[in-house]
Amino acid sequence: MTETDQRADLGKDIMRIFNLALLSPLLLTGALAQTTTAAPAPTATLGLTISHAGVRPVVDGSSKFFTGSAKVEQLFPVNAPSRVSGGIVTFAPGARSAWHTHPLGQVLIITAGTGRVQMEGGPIQVVHAGDVVIIPAHVKHWHGAAPDSSMSHIAIQDNLDGDAVDWLEPVTDQQYNGGK
Amino acid sequence: MTETDQRADLGKDIMRIFNLALLSPLLLTGALAQTTTAAPAPTATLGLTISHAGVRPVVDGSSKFFTGSAKVEQLFPVNAPSRVSGGIVTFAPGARSAWHTHPLGQVLIITAGTGRVQMEGGPIQVVHAGDVVIIPAHVKHWHGAAPDSSMSHIAIQDNLDGDAVDWLEPVTDQQYNGGK
Repeated sequence: MTETDQRADLGKDIMRIFNLALLSPLLLTGALAQTTTAAPAPTATLGLTISHAGVRPVVDGSSKFFTGSAKVEQLFPVNAPSRVSGGIVTFAPGARSAWHTHPLGQVLIITAGTGRVQMEGGPIQVVHAGDVVIIPAHVKHWHGAAPDSSMSHIAIQDNLDGDAVDWLEPVTDQQYNGGK
Repeated sequence: MTETDQRADLGKDIMRIFNLALLSPLLLTGALAQTTTAAPAPTATLGLTISHAGVRPVVDGSSKFFTGSAKVEQLFPVNAPSRVSGGIVTFAPGARSAWHTHPLGQVLIITAGTGRVQMEGGPIQVVHAGDVVIIPAHVKHWHGAAPDSSMSHIAIQDNLDGDAVDWLEPVTDQQYNGGK
């Protein structure tokens, strides 16, 4: 396979992702009622479970836990004895999570856009597509989009007794903008 | 933000990912010697750890465990008390893993291309970018690219006593092509 072939092949793949990324928040929210059974069942432990692109429900992040628009798509639930679950969150510009902690930690893989991440007492850090953020257990933090860019990340976390997050207070505009 | 803005914004993001995907196997393998300390340390448990795109080493998958060319980039190591580690694997057309199992299971998020996945005794299943494959603990299986397309996936697995995979025999050409 030549580099030109690879470039062409990657180009096709990127267009597929582009279309997926563009369509999923528009189509899947509307299709939610029809597709609530499309997510893999937590009890499907006997064989491989494949959930295809475009059929997983996307829901609005609760205003209790997010400021601004956050779309949440579960990619995979916990499948014991694994403890891991994962999803994609897409934040509109300026949107962010509330402050929160994870009992066993979390990893964010930034898949699109530019965002902000901050742990309590630390600086706001800017993240871009391709960056990976490792958040240790019990570290109070928030994450979201930059003011002028949307941001999407895959979020991966271990679940402890069915709990993967402990929500705290909202991130104020002053905090989001780096004020003390 | 209008749909046109979103499209333009996503376009920029996709180009960033495109450039990243195109460059990383070419640049990072060569830069491996310089960047072996760039991966987050497993002991970095006090605060957020961010590994930026373009600085994580990419290594060739061992010929003991892969047939054909597989490039492996670790995204995040285990950070206790989490048990999870993750990486991106890019298979050239026709390349695939050996048969293997995971002590606590694995999840694959297909990020580019078209691939094949099979559990022992089951059919070969075709996967595309955006699909998610959940592999239960102890299920013997393999995954790789389609014959005429590369395939990249994020692989996420729980580690049990430092072990996340038990390797078995190679997938023969006959098996890869669906022969009995």
